[in-house]
Amino acid sequence: MIRAGRGVRRALAAAVRDAVRSGRLAPGTRLPSSRRLAADLGLARNTVADAYGDLVAEGWLTARRGSGTLVTDRMIDRPIPVRPAAEPSGDPCYDLIPGNPDLSAFPRAAWLKATRRALAAAPDDAFGYGDPRGRPELQAALADHLARVRGVDANPEHILICAGVSHALQILCEVLAGRGARRVAVESYGPDRHRGLLAAAGLETFPLALDAYGTDPVPPDGTDAVLLTPAHQFPVGTTLQRDRRTAVVDWATRTGGLVLEDDYDGEFRFDQQSVGALQALAPDRVVYLGTASNTLAPGLRLAWMALPPTVAAEATAAKGSIDSCAVLSQLTMAEFITSGAYGHHVRAGRRRYRHRRDSLVTALAQHAPKVRATGTAAGLHTVLSLPPGTEQRVLHAAVREGLKVAGLSQYRHARSRNVMADALVVGYGVPSDDVWPQALSALMRILS
Amino acid sequence: MIRAGRGVRRALAAAVRDAVRSGRLAPGTRLPSSRRLAADLGLARNTVADAYGDLVAEGWLTARRGSGTLVTDRMIDRPIPVRPAAEPSGDPCYDLIPGNPDLSAFPRAAWLKATRRALAAAPDDAFGYGDPRGRPELQAALADHLARVRGVDANPEHILICAGVSHALQILCEVLAGRGARRVAVESYGPDRHRGLLAAAGLETFPLALDAYGTDPVPPDGTDAVLLTPAHQFPVGTTLQRDRRTAVVDWATRTGGLVLEDDYDGEFRFDQQSVGALQALAPDRVVYLGTASNTLAPGLRLAWMALPPTVAAEATAAKGSIDSCAVLSQLTMAEFITSGAYGHHVRAGRRRYRHRRDSLVTALAQHAPKVRATGTAAGLHTVLSLPPGTEQRVLHAAVREGLKVAGLSQYRHARSRNVMADALVVGYGVPSDDVWPQALSALMRILS
Repeated sequence: MIRAGRGVRRALAAAVRDAVRSGRLAPGTRLPSSRRLAADLGLARNTVADAYGDLVAEGWLTARRGSGTLVTDRMIDRPIPVRPAAEPSGDPCYDLIPGNPDLSAFPRAAWLKATRRALAAAPDDAFGYGDPRGRPELQAALADHLARVRGVDANPEHILICAGVSHALQILCEVLAGRGARRVAVESYGPDRHRGLLAAAGLETFPLALDAYGTDPVPPDGTDAVLLTPAHQFPVGTTLQRDRRTAVVDWATRTGGLVLEDDYDGEFRFDQQSVGALQALAPDRVVYLGTASNTLAPGLRLAWMALPPTVAAEATAAKGSIDSCAVLSQLTMAEFITSGAYGHHVRAGRRRYRHRRDSLVTALAQHAPKVRATGTAAGLHTVLSLPPGTEQRVLHAAVREGLKVAGLSQYRHARSRNVMADALVVGYGVPSDDVWPQALSALMRILS
Repeated sequence: MIRAGRGVRRALAAAVRDAVRSGRLAPGTRLPSSRRLAADLGLARNTVADAYGDLVAEGWLTARRGSGTLVTDRMIDRPIPVRPAAEPSGDPCYDLIPGNPDLSAFPRAAWLKATRRALAAAPDDAFGYGDPRGRPELQAALADHLARVRGVDANPEHILICAGVSHALQILCEVLAGRGARRVAVESYGPDRHRGLLAAAGLETFPLALDAYGTDPVPPDGTDAVLLTPAHQFPVGTTLQRDRRTAVVDWATRTGGLVLEDDYDGEFRFDQQSVGALQALAPDRVVYLGTASNTLAPGLRLAWMALPPTVAAEATAAKGSIDSCAVLSQLTMAEFITSGAYGHHVRAGRRRYRHRRDSLVTALAQHAPKVRATGTAAGLHTVLSLPPGTEQRVLHAAVREGLKVAGLSQYRHARSRNVMADALVVGYGVPSDDVWPQALSALMRILS
């Protein structure tokens, strides 16, 4: 193999950069494999691989597990900066992208206290290679907590600890693929990241219909699984109605399909009694997914699945033969839950986010009466309806105001027959309490 | 899809169980996919998948990422018990399997202190989705520590934090596969787990020749990468000689191949000056892999790679777009290193393990003078030569004595032309200080 020529490599990178900048290479376009391009151009494979590597580092390209190298869709995959300083200048100062909690509210003292207790109580073997399912202390604490707060009906042994919901989905993809599954139904609007994980595992995703009541969750026969956010549809914000819950569970029972219930913000319900988990209707057919990313912090890398008994062993095997989640974080989380500190922290968060939701609705009434906020009964985000055809304009205005916000359209499944009216998806979780007022007025400026 | 019939499922599981027990299905045998077997037997796919699931949970089968369902090789993949209680009775009470440190020596107080400081010093955004490379604090602490202790020459930005060496290898496999790599040379004797990870990624592994000086690390041209344990060959215990280090680095530079340096116990050197990392000879062709699993505890799930600049971006992309390692563990580890607590703990460990090594050598001289211990200059394990043809007999005697030990033969690459004489691989890391004497005398009983 010829060694990589730095000149050639730089030239190649520059050419691709220009193509992306000029739009000749559209976001999402798949590039040829470094092997093929090298052959086509008569270059050393490493030269092409290195050029791709540079562009990935700069954020122009995205190397995606299983699906090769794609032109980055900047709305979705934010570039990985080579160093924090290298981030594009004019970077927004108010982050209203949904999906993150207020990180300044992380309960450092309470977490340290839980760590002290966990370290004191841990048996020696807790520091070894763990059981792939996770620590029994955390399985037990979660089984009890989820039963009380979300009505989840699960045996602690069937709770699998994961390093985030993405990790959990990757595990489920492997289980489904291992069972020969092919087609997974997803909601018309949802996180691109989740669709990407399913696609990377070779599963075809197709959108469920959307109507005035929200998602129609019953897929055509021949579907192997359905991925849903029943408590608070992400991003639209609707709640799956009772009859539809029964309908999708009946489908699963009749066909042997699986329902994947992503309960990403199920603990943050404001206006009415929290809607229980769908899982309770059919513990044998529903996989319940929860996470500490919204209630505590994504940095903990802690999520969990309540698995049907018939899926537990395969999911454990798919996770691998050793636990990939730090044992001490698991023991600390278990202590944090059983001591009541977790419930206390979640209630405080619910008050904080409800207050922000209220102040947002009030501000809209005053400054942008035409804009309607929907899906505001729960969670860390809301959808703001916009006058037809204005979504892109408002997004550009947001950039000028230093606001990071998302347009509803970017969450749409490319093959969905439903197209929702222009809207913004506004996350009110991230700003700290003292920054929130400025963020709110900047938002009003682009809406009024 | 027909729903799974429990009777059929139980019968199917029982049939496979018998076949494995009787040896009709040999360890390592790949079973047909649940889809195919279902078709062959005219059963519902789920019935077969569930039966497989049960057998995986019981440890009879192993579902391996990418390579389907295999009959478990009990010497290597220990069964995942459905519940701790369900472990086979007569379980050994002394664990002398190499690869684990003394977990009773985990520095709980010092770790808590580091956690307190890390929590106090962490910026709010540390609790968010992290940079996939890991926390800069830990990258910097490791770059400095590895430079001082192992002579590693790496820019902090090119240090990637992983959840263990297996995770690191999975990432490297993806990088290699993405570059179109096909063939990876490994040592004639080495961990089956690592060969399995490479195979699962579709990479062909083939063994390097072994001679009186240890591994001949220079592979035939057309090889894409070489996986080595230069400081202390696992399990044989030899150290890669200077001329061979130069030779393999020359090969990499000449062909553009990569050297993967697994420095699993490089910090535990007893008799002479620690041998520096191979990486220093060619930082842009050698990937250095290190881990906290041997120096602190596997439960931390912390490992690291020092990457050639041209590989860093691809490896980061392969790790995924968010960090999968708990941020707080990373910040705590950084604090633990910079405060000097890590160096202190490693030195204490070196004294402990050296003492055990010495007591083992002394005991052999007294009770089993015919048995020679080799590869004892470093690390957590040693190789004990046995009279020809006695390895299996001694392994069975070990079981009767309640000793968990490994035979050298189980580490051999199936295609290696070299067959080493019968020997035991004895890890002296795991037993606590007060248990070690009993473990040692049990070992002497089976050897004398």
